[in-house]
Parts: sequence; structure tokens; C-alpha cells
Amino acid sequence: MRISKLVGERLKEAPSTANVKSHNFLLRAGFLKQVCNGIFSMMNPAQRVSLKIQNIIREEMNSIGGQEVLFPVVMPREMWEKSGRYNSIGQEMVRFKDRNDHDMLLGMTHEEAAVHLCQNTVKSYDQLPFMIYQIQTKFRDEARPRAGLIRVREFTMKDAYSFHYDKEELKQYYQKVFDAYQRIFKRIGMKNFIAVKSDTGMMGGDIAHEFMLLTDIGEDSIVICPHCDYKANMEVATSIDEKPSFEDGQLQEVFTGKAKTIEEVCKQLSIKPQQTIKAVCYAMVGDDKNTVVVFIRGDKEVNEAKLKRVLGKDVAVKDLAETGFVKGNIGCVNLDLPNTKILYDNSLENLCGLVTGANKEEYHLIGVNINRDLKNAQFYDLAKVKENEKCPVCGKPLEIKRGIEIGNIFQLGTKYTKAMEMTIAMPDGSLINPLMACYGIGVGRALASVAEESCDEKGLVWPMSIAPWQIYLCPLRMDNLQVKETAEKLEKQLSEKFEVIYDDRNVSAGVKLTDSELMGIPIRVVVSPRSLENNQVEVAIRKTGEKMMVETKDIEKTIKAIIDKQMGELSGK
Amino acid sequence: MRISKLVGERLKEAPSTANVKSHNFLLRAGFLKQVCNGIFSMMNPAQRVSLKIQNIIREEMNSIGGQEVLFPVVMPREMWEKSGRYNSIGQEMVRFKDRNDHDMLLGMTHEEAAVHLCQNTVKSYDQLPFMIYQIQTKFRDEARPRAGLIRVREFTMKDAYSFHYDKEELKQYYQKVFDAYQRIFKRIGMKNFIAVKSDTGMMGGDIAHEFMLLTDIGEDSIVICPHCDYKANMEVATSIDEKPSFEDGQLQEVFTGKAKTIEEVCKQLSIKPQQTIKAVCYAMVGDDKNTVVVFIRGDKEVNEAKLKRVLGKDVAVKDLAETGFVKGNIGCVNLDLPNTKILYDNSLENLCGLVTGANKEEYHLIGVNINRDLKNAQFYDLAKVKENEKCPVCGKPLEIKRGIEIGNIFQLGTKYTKAMEMTIAMPDGSLINPLMACYGIGVGRALASVAEESCDEKGLVWPMSIAPWQIYLCPLRMDNLQVKETAEKLEKQLSEKFEVIYDDRNVSAGVKLTDSELMGIPIRVVVSPRSLENNQVEVAIRKTGEKMMVETKDIEKTIKAIIDKQMGELSGK
Repeated sequence: MRISKLVGERLKEAPSTANVKSHNFLLRAGFLKQVCNGIFSMMNPAQRVSLKIQNIIREEMNSIGGQEVLFPVVMPREMWEKSGRYNSIGQEMVRFKDRNDHDMLLGMTHEEAAVHLCQNTVKSYDQLPFMIYQIQTKFRDEARPRAGLIRVREFTMKDAYSFHYDKEELKQYYQKVFDAYQRIFKRIGMKNFIAVKSDTGMMGGDIAHEFMLLTDIGEDSIVICPHCDYKANMEVATSIDEKPSFEDGQLQEVFTGKAKTIEEVCKQLSIKPQQTIKAVCYAMVGDDKNTVVVFIRGDKEVNEAKLKRVLGKDVAVKDLAETGFVKGNIGCVNLDLPNTKILYDNSLENLCGLVTGANKEEYHLIGVNINRDLKNAQFYDLAKVKENEKCPVCGKPLEIKRGIEIGNIFQLGTKYTKAMEMTIAMPDGSLINPLMACYGIGVGRALASVAEESCDEKGLVWPMSIAPWQIYLCPLRMDNLQVKETAEKLEKQLSEKFEVIYDDRNVSAGVKLTDSELMGIPIRVVVSPRSLENNQVEVAIRKTGEKMMVETKDIEKTIKAIIDKQMGELSGK
Repeated sequence: MRISKLVGERLKEAPSTANVKSHNFLLRAGFLKQVCNGIFSMMNPAQRVSLKIQNIIREEMNSIGGQEVLFPVVMPREMWEKSGRYNSIGQEMVRFKDRNDHDMLLGMTHEEAAVHLCQNTVKSYDQLPFMIYQIQTKFRDEARPRAGLIRVREFTMKDAYSFHYDKEELKQYYQKVFDAYQRIFKRIGMKNFIAVKSDTGMMGGDIAHEFMLLTDIGEDSIVICPHCDYKANMEVATSIDEKPSFEDGQLQEVFTGKAKTIEEVCKQLSIKPQQTIKAVCYAMVGDDKNTVVVFIRGDKEVNEAKLKRVLGKDVAVKDLAETGFVKGNIGCVNLDLPNTKILYDNSLENLCGLVTGANKEEYHLIGVNINRDLKNAQFYDLAKVKENEKCPVCGKPLEIKRGIEIGNIFQLGTKYTKAMEMTIAMPDGSLINPLMACYGIGVGRALASVAEESCDEKGLVWPMSIAPWQIYLCPLRMDNLQVKETAEKLEKQLSEKFEVIYDDRNVSAGVKLTDSELMGIPIRVVVSPRSLENNQVEVAIRKTGEKMMVETKDIEKTIKAIIDKQMGELSGK
């Protein structure tokens, strides 16, 4: 490829909307063009990277027996009504009517399609386990696309579905995919990533893992124990709660005036937040009438993902206007309001001497004894883990990091096969709903995540395995006949064995060198009048900054050695 | 791949809806599963074929400098309003509102996206010509999906767009793509295909070609001269009209009673259809008020594609109720109705002695002299070519054949760059709208077309270049230890160099052999107790039916020779 014909400019500055490094460099280096909010066109360099990532995924999926298939993007309502998700998934799923007024949708995931494909086709236990996967376009109408390709509305995804006849066999296959994912991320050049336990969310099922790239721009919080192997997404993370102890006493109303927040009440009463009971009110989405009140210790915060799981419904913070609640003075003792569901966090269990609202303006209650005053309280794990709380496995202090989800795997169980009535015959002739697991990797997000992790102040630094080209061939003086001829000879010679982008432009050396770095091509070969005096060219390695003079006759050998070394480091083992 | 784990049954009979061979066999051999009308899931064997076709397309596009990109499936209304197609394209384009109530659509083609990508990115004539292409899912809400993958609603397509600074340069590049298309179709094993001139339809522009596979199940009619090189889609085909000659006479009303059709009038007046003037009435789509009347010689039929081009609008046959027209007696002399547009076909030009309706019940006019009686008539080429009419190039009789459109290429001119205001600077500093051409191939349709052409009474016969696997390894008696061991050894050995599907099922020899033929795998290796007595296996070639006994030690060499030979035949040269 000659850069003069390559569609895509290299820019000095990216639009101000590009607020993360990967997005900034991908725009500046001519990889992407935004079409509208959360929707991009991929220019040739990005598509080349994407295809290489896809091929690595394909190889690893095939290596564990995966069968590549292709499900439709557009599916009929009926298929998703069977699973219940036509109604349970919100606005992020696009629905439309076709020309015959039939309800259709754009697939955001393909569990239903996978069951449809296998139903009445796979009939016997001895055809299991198997895994089918596709690499295809998905559309999710995200409320808040962000960070370039990190969170978009349209994206290319590898989604895989495995089928099993019992839990043990599912567990074994799940582990195989887990291992394949580790290899995939290593092979595409991801460095600082981990697998954590995660929430199953709208997918259903019990056990799930997310693969997370640790980075400050991540939108997920990950709880990690640096002392043992404990790692979990904040949504499911737990810790050992160090229960405080307070003197038991009599329940008593005290005047607290305008003190409403935990901070204000603590100041007023000269106590610490862990002696208070915080009330947080929620509405369940699609249910205006009822209010959910969570009581939690004042030093803790509610983990809404955990709350959603307990309720089985999505929640939003409730506006208390026109309810019977006294804002800032809500208390758990004798709270008796219609249409109210009350939940208690584990952090309150067995405590005494606590402070709560008195359910009337300007008053709080002190001396709350949970066991005495709240006889029928239901306790749940509803708290967010905080930095330095104790690891639930080893008891040592936990850390909290930010991460980008780069892959996820779910043990779905029979949720979909049961709903869609897919059965297989067991050896004894009985019919069972097979178990399923599903496995996703977003290709564009993987590309952006690698870009985010592998870059420096000059631009992108592509790992050899997924670089759009391996070599940036860069003659410095196109007006020098010898330079031009040598460069064109090298272009022809190197293109036979390697992937070469040839900078054939009549622009300054500075522009060329800067562009090669911005685009992040792993090896740069510079042909200049001076180097040719000794029949040499300069070879520079983008990743290390290393430069060497190489005789033109040795160039192929040198390049092959660099590629082999870098590919060896990315072998995934 | 082991067939016991392959998702997809081999069936004795296909559903009765499968009324063409390719669809029937693709369903019976476990390649496809229908999701709903015009929407399919591709099972692993079909996806393997599809990926091979995609790679051949990719190689040929890259070989002429094509840059692979990826445009979004979902696009915003604004982009398509600029080109005018948001309104001009009908129900086949899916439109929906996103969560922010923004109008979006599913791309059925990507001229707008291509211009958007290059606009403000490519700025100078010396960056041209270039070609960008993608391979991606498209959705067209077809009114009548048919014939399996031949006409579907969702499909994978390669669409390419080239940009040019003048017509000559466009013409040269267009020819390059034309040649690449010939190579692609040869390489994927298409045999009886031709390129014909075609209508530009909703794409706009002047010159266009379709690549057609000649087959009786085709939905297009193609006009071919077997004597010279003339080939054209019926939509644009022309012929030399042999004008009849009749005696000139006086215009005279004659009673024709209930004779309404051309046939009835001819019988009544003892004349031939070519002496009559036929009237055909149309409504323009989206325009209920006006009527279009085409007058054409009685032995001809109106070519609606030509009429659409003349009008620049879509047409439908008009219901004459509640118009002023006298059905069956419409005539061109003194026809004076409001809201009526009148067009004449070239076949009537300069004739005399003709018969037309008298615009009153039970009467016709005889002795019509076109030049005398229709002074302001406008003549256009509006007639369908008929078998045995004279070739417009060499004058010899034309043939009409059926074909499936397997690819199309269009010279678009500046339609899109002008509408979307994309400009490039020329050497003299002036700004021009670059010229464009676009080029499409439907991957699924190509797959089905090859299947349609390459099959026999036993099933599919895949060309080596796109076969899902090269070898069907088929041990006949899995209960025979020596057979099983040899087969498993061969599976391992052959899989290192070739693509092998291994039939590890405990089923009868008949089932295995039948399935191998139904699936159309090019080479079958049969391991049986009898052949092993001489250390041999049987190698059968699906395409020729040839069978040979080969010593197990020579198997690799034999297979390589067969593959090399077949691939040589498909080299595209």
C-alpha cells in the first residue's frame, strides 16, 4: 500500500471530543471517522487491525472445536418473546416493523438464535458438547457512547454459545474457553488484564467472568486482593465487614433540626457515620407506585447491581416528592408506609446503639437495637466494597482499580433451552434441556483497548500480531533518484514477504517520521542519501525506540528476526 | 472437524418450500436454517464456504489496490437526505427511530457512507484514483424473498467504491474491476456466466454492467446475440425494429363492438397486431392524480424499466376506474384528458394505416397516419426486446436467456459527490466533484449460485476453491479396530495439511457415502476392512465420479495432486 493513496489523513490535533488516548490517536492517525454519536466508519488501517484480531479469535475458537456460523442481525419478535427478552430488554434493543408490519429487532446478542439453530437439529447427548460462534455486527442503542471505540452503539463482536448435557461437562468446557480467552488477549498484545467474577445481568445464569484490561479510563471498578487470588467486578465483590460495637441503650427521639445528611447528623450528635443508619430510596423501573427503601450503615454505600439482583428488576433513585417520606429523616423503626418494600444491608445485622431518622421533620432516633427494634428485618448483601476493606478470602486489605471489560463469559444454565423448549435425548431415553454457556469479545473494543494500553506520547505502538502493516518504508528524499529507486526496489522485495506501507509522498522528513510513529507501525525502514553511501538503511523498532543501520542486502533477514522475536513474545503461551 | 459434533442434520427430503436445487440441497445437507421469511442462519459448512468466497474477493480487490474499510450498518437520516435517497427509496429500506427519537436506517448500499468517509479527508487529485471496499451485512426488505439464498432480506455483501478525477481515468479503473470480477467468479468455480449492460436503477449514473449466471431459475431476462458480442439485461436491451408498411388512407371510425384486446380487434378487422396501436396506462408511484399512457405498436410490449428511466419515477399499472379513459378503446388521436402524460414508442414512428381506439365505446379508428395525425408526438425507446428480433450491433437474430445477477458494477459519475458537496483540488487549483463508480457482489448469492450450477442428482459438488472441507474421511466400519485406528491416524495426518471432515459416526456405509455426496466434499477417502487388506484406501473425486485405490503411504501425494489440478482449473486466468 502506498500512503499517497491511503484514505485517511494524519492530523496534528484530534477533535476535542476525543478525551482518551486511544480515541485521540485513532482519529489523528487516520484509523476512524465518526458517522454519528457512537457510530464509526473504520478506515483501512483500523479494518486491517480488526481483521487480524478476528483471525486470532477465529484460530483460538477453532482450536477448541468451535464451529463458525452466522446468525442474522435482524430477527423476528417471536424468537425473543419465547425467551422473555423481547419485553425484559429496554431501549438499548432496536425494534422496528418490516414492510409487512411484522415486529423485528436488531440482535444485541444471539442466545435465542443459537438455540433456534440447534433446536431439532441436535437431538442426542452424544452430539454434545459443541460450541458455535460467529463474528458479526451488533447494534446496542447505548444511552451514553463514550471513549471512541470503547463504548459504541454499533460494533463487531465474536459471540459463542456452547451446549452441554451436565454441569460438570459445562464447567470443563467453560474452563477451555477461559483458557482460550487468555491466549487471545495475550496474542493480540494485551498486557495488564485479569479475569474477574462478574454479574450475569440480562444474560441470566449463575457463574460469569469478565476479562478486564486494567486502566484508569475504565468505567468498571474492580476489587482486587493483592495478597491472594481474589478478583471481582465491583458489581459482585464482597468483603469481610468489621462490625463496630456501640453501647446498647433506650430508643429515644432527639431534636436534630436541619441536620439531614449523615455528615450533618454525625456532627450534631458527635458520632461517626458507622453509628448511623442511612436510608436510600429507589423506584423500580416500570413501576411508579412502589418505593424500595434500603437501610444500610452510614459508612457504606448501596451497590445498585446487587440491589437489582435481589429485586430481579432495574432500579433508579426515587424522587421523594409526593410520597409520604420525610426526606433526611427517614428511619427504619416503625416505618409504616403503603407501597414500600424495605431491605436491610448485612452491615446492620446484630448492631445496637444506632441512630436513624424519626420519620418526622427535625428529629432522629438514637439507641436503635436492630434485633430488638426490627424483629422481621430481611438482611441482604447490598453494600459496595471500599478500598482497604478485608478480602473475603484471605482477610487482607483490598484494592480497587479501574478496568475496561474486554471479554465476558457466562454459564447460562437452561434459561434459554427451557424457555425455547430445546431438548436432547439422554442415554436412558429421557429428554432434558441442555445447559448453555456464552462467550463474547468485542473486536472494536479490543482494538481500542490495545491502542489505549500500547501507546506513548508520539502515538500508537501496535503489537506485531495485529499491526496494520509490519513495516513503514520511508524514503527521506524522494527527489534523490538513488533514494527513490532503492526504496521502490525495497517496496517490491519486502512486500513479497511482509506487509509494507510505503511512504511515497513528497513531504519533509519530519512529517514522514512523525506519521510513522503516530500510526504505530512496528518497524520503520528509512532510506536516506546518507545511509545509502554505505549501502545501508536505518531500521527503527517502534516499541523499544531501538535503531540500527543495516546493509540493504541483510534487510530481509533483520526484519524477519525482529518479527519472529516480537511474535514469539506474543505467542499466547 | 468430526461430523458427530457438527451442528446440522443431513436430510432425505427438504421442506416443500425449497423449489430450486441449490436451496433444496443447502437445506438437506445441513448448510442453512431459515429464521423467517428471507432471513437465514448459516451453519458451519455454509459459513466456511462464505469465508472462502470472501477471501477470494478480498484478494482480488486488494490486487487492484482496494482498501478494505468498514462502514456502519446503521446510519443517520441526514446522510441519506443529502443524497436524496432517504425519500426516493421505498419500503425496501428499513427506517427506525433510536432511543433519542433520531431517524436512523439500515444501509442497503453505502455510496453515502463512502463519500462521508472520503470527504474532507481526500483533498487533492493526486490521491486519486483509489478504491475502498467492505464486506458486511446488508438488509433490504424485499417484497418477495425467493429461492433460498438467491433473494433474501439479509445478506453479506462486498461493496466497493472508487473515486476519480476524470472520465477516462474512471473508465480505466472500471475496466480493472470488471477484469477482477471475471477472475473472482472463475476462481469461486462459476462456469456459465456473462457480463451484460444493465440499468443503473436507484444507483444513478450512466454505464453499468451486471454479471449474470445463466440458469433457468434466474429471475432476469438477458438478451444475447449468439453471432456477435452483444449482451444486455432486458431492462436496457434494444433491437433493430423491422418497421412494417401499410397503405396510407383516411382516418375513419369503425364499429368494433365488444372487441377490446389487440387480439379481438385484429380478428374483427382481419389485420395483424403490428398494424394496431396498443395503449398501456400507468400510474406514477406516489402520484395518484396523473395517468401515463404509453402508445406502442400492437406486436410489442412495454419495458417498464425503460419507462421508469424516461419518467425518472417508479410506475405501476393503472386501474382505469374513475378516470375518463374508455378501457379497450383508448386511442391516440384527439386524446384530450386532463392530468395525462402521453408517450410514444419508437415502433410507431413514421407509420401510417394503423388502427387505434376511438376513445368511445365499441369504436376504433382506422387509417391512422402518425406524422399527419399526431403532430407533437414524443417518441422514446420503450419496447421490450423479443426473441429473434435483430441484434442492434450485427443485425442477426437475438436470443433471450434467464440469469441470476451475481455481481454489478456502476459508473455513478458525480451524483453523490455533488449532492454531498465533496470536492478535490485539481492541478490548476480548481475544485471539482470527483467521479465515482461502485461495485457489488453478494456473498450468499454467489454461494447459492455456485451450488445451483454445481450439483447433480446426488447433491452438491463444491469447487475445490470454496469447498467447506477438501476431504471427507470416511471409515466404513467403526466397529473394526483396524479401520478405526487407520482412520484416526489419517485424520491426524491429513488435517495437518488439508481440511478434513471426519465421519466418525456409527452408521451404515450407505448413510456415510450418501452424506458425503450430498454435502459435496471434493475428495472422499474411504477406509474399509477390505481395502486395508492391501494397505489401501479408496479415493473418490466428487466432480468426476472417478475412484482409485491408493496405498496409505501415498495418500498425501495423491490428494495433493488432485487438489493442485482442481485449483489450477480454477486459477481465474
